[in-house]
Amino acid sequence: MAEFERIARYLQPLAGEGAMELRDDAARAYGRVLTKDVLVEGTHFLPGDPIDLLARKALRVNASDLIAKGAEPEAYMLGLVWPEARGEAEFASFCDGLRVEQELTGLELLGGDTTRGPCLMISVTMFGVRTGPEILRSGGEVGDMLMVTGTIGDGLLALEAAKEGQADAAAAYYLPPVPYGAEFAVSAHANAALDVSDGLIADTRHLAEESKIGIRLFAGRIPLSAAGKKAASEGRLPDLLTGGDDYQSLMLCRVEEKISDDRFTVIGEAMDGLPPGHVEVLMPDGELWVPEKGGWDHFTS
Amino acid sequence: MAEFERIARYLQPLAGEGAMELRDDAARAYGRVLTKDVLVEGTHFLPGDPIDLLARKALRVNASDLIAKGAEPEAYMLGLVWPEARGEAEFASFCDGLRVEQELTGLELLGGDTTRGPCLMISVTMFGVRTGPEILRSGGEVGDMLMVTGTIGDGLLALEAAKEGQADAAAAYYLPPVPYGAEFAVSAHANAALDVSDGLIADTRHLAEESKIGIRLFAGRIPLSAAGKKAASEGRLPDLLTGGDDYQSLMLCRVEEKISDDRFTVIGEAMDGLPPGHVEVLMPDGELWVPEKGGWDHFTS
Repeated sequence: MAEFERIARYLQPLAGEGAMELRDDAARAYGRVLTKDVLVEGTHFLPGDPIDLLARKALRVNASDLIAKGAEPEAYMLGLVWPEARGEAEFASFCDGLRVEQELTGLELLGGDTTRGPCLMISVTMFGVRTGPEILRSGGEVGDMLMVTGTIGDGLLALEAAKEGQADAAAAYYLPPVPYGAEFAVSAHANAALDVSDGLIADTRHLAEESKIGIRLFAGRIPLSAAGKKAASEGRLPDLLTGGDDYQSLMLCRVEEKISDDRFTVIGEAMDGLPPGHVEVLMPDGELWVPEKGGWDHFTS
Repeated sequence: MAEFERIARYLQPLAGEGAMELRDDAARAYGRVLTKDVLVEGTHFLPGDPIDLLARKALRVNASDLIAKGAEPEAYMLGLVWPEARGEAEFASFCDGLRVEQELTGLELLGGDTTRGPCLMISVTMFGVRTGPEILRSGGEVGDMLMVTGTIGDGLLALEAAKEGQADAAAAYYLPPVPYGAEFAVSAHANAALDVSDGLIADTRHLAEESKIGIRLFAGRIPLSAAGKKAASEGRLPDLLTGGDDYQSLMLCRVEEKISDDRFTVIGEAMDGLPPGHVEVLMPDGELWVPEKGGWDHFTS
C-alpha cells in the first residue's frame, strides 16, 4: 500500500481542523503554517554526506514546503537521533550548519530533543508566517498557467553525482537551492501551489488532482541547468521530470498575472477539455507524452 | 560529553526567544507550550513492544512534559520512520493506538511525515494550552514543599518486567500512567515544576539547580506501588528513586498551598541552609543519603 493510501485510510480520520485533512503539504494552526519533514540516513541521505550541509538541508526541505505555501520560514523544533559513532566534532559541525542556515534566513531554534539511535535521523517541525492568503494544492482553475522557480532535474542529477563521488556536480543534492523569498510571489499570485519534492510530474499531478483540472506541461519551456540540458540531449528528459528533490516552488496562477519574481518560469497550462487529475507533456519533438502515475513514494515497496 | 553539555555548548547559541535558552522542558511560542520527544526502537522501547501501546506512549511522554508545565495537551505533529518489515496490520494498530489516546485526551493530529528507515522512530511535536501562569524549572524558593503525582519507581520496575517477559508487571512501561488533568493543580500552585523522566533524584536536582536552592527528599513519604514497596523492602529504594520514565509531575510550591488534586503527595522540602543544586534524601532508617550526580542521559557513553 502506497504512502498516500495509508495516510488516507489510517491517519486522516485522526486529523484535526488545522490538518487540512492531511491533503496539503502543511498544517495551519496558531496563526502559522506548520510542516514536518524527517530525514533518515540511508533513506534520504548517504552516511558520508557532509554533516554541516545535512543540517542545512534538513532545514531547507522544510522551508521549501512553507515557501510554496506563501509562508516565510520563522522557527523550528529539532528532533535529532544521533548515533554514538558520530562524535563531538561532527555534532559541532552539524550545529554550525544550523547556525549558517539560521543566519541566512532568520530562522530560530525553539527547542527539541536529542537522543541516541542506530542511525542519524533529523526530524524538523517548522513554523512559517503567511505572507498572504491561504494557498492549498486545490484552488487551481482551468486556464491557469503553471509556473516553477529555478531549474528542474538537478535534484536527480546531483544525487547521481553524489553516489559517484563527484562532489562538485552534487552541490544541489547536498544543499538544494531552495527559493527563499519566493513565498511573496506565491502569496501574491498563486491559486494553488506546492514544492517539487516528489518530481515535477508527480507534483503537477497533485495540483491537477486536488484542483480537479488537467494540466499540460510544455517540456521545451521547462528550465534546465547546463547539466540538465546535457542529460536531456542524451534522452533523459523524462528522468529529469520524474526525479524528486528539486525543492522548487510550483504554482498555478491566472494568465494575466505579472510575476515580479523573475525566478518563476511558465512551464504549463491548466487546459480546458482535459480530465481532472490528468497530466500530459508536450515534448520538444512535438509528441504528447502521458506519464504513468508514480513518483517518489517512501512507502511503496 | 553529556547531553546537557552538548546542548549548552552547541545548541543554546541557536535558540530563539521562545526556547527558554533550552533550559526548560518546553518552548513557548504562538500562545502555546511546545514540546518534542523522539522515541527510537532499541533506545527507548523494545522491538516487540505492542505497537498500539507504543503509539499511545509516544503521545504520553510528550503530554507528560506539557502537564508538568501547567499546559493542557491539545494537538501534535507526527514524524514516523516506519521500517518495511512492519506491515499494514501493524500500521493500522499503531494508528488505532493514536486514536484511543486522542479520544481519551482530546488531542488532535495536525500533520506530519511518514517515511522508511531501518528501525521504528516516533517523533512527536506536541502543543499545549497553558491553564495558568508560566511554569519553569526555576522559580522554586527556600521553604517550598516538593510534591509529586502518582507513584515513583514503577517506570523502572515495569521496564525490568518487560525485559523478563512479565506482561502484567510491565503495564506502566507499556503505558505510563501520565497524570492527565494535573496541569490545573500545577498551574494553580507550582513555583517550579517538571515531569519525572530522568529519575526522581535527577529531576529534583534539575529543580534545585535551576531554582538555585537545596532540596531534601523524605524517602519514607515517597509514594510507592505494591511492587515498589516490595522492591524497597529488598534494598532497592535507591534504584526506584534514580530510575527514569515515571512520567509523573513534580512541583515545588509554597507550604501553605492547599492542593485540591489528591494525586499529589508531599515528598520533600527546599530547606534553608542547603547549597544551591544540592539534593539529599532522608532515608527511612534515619540516615542522610547524598546521591551522586547522574540519572538517565542518552548522550553519556
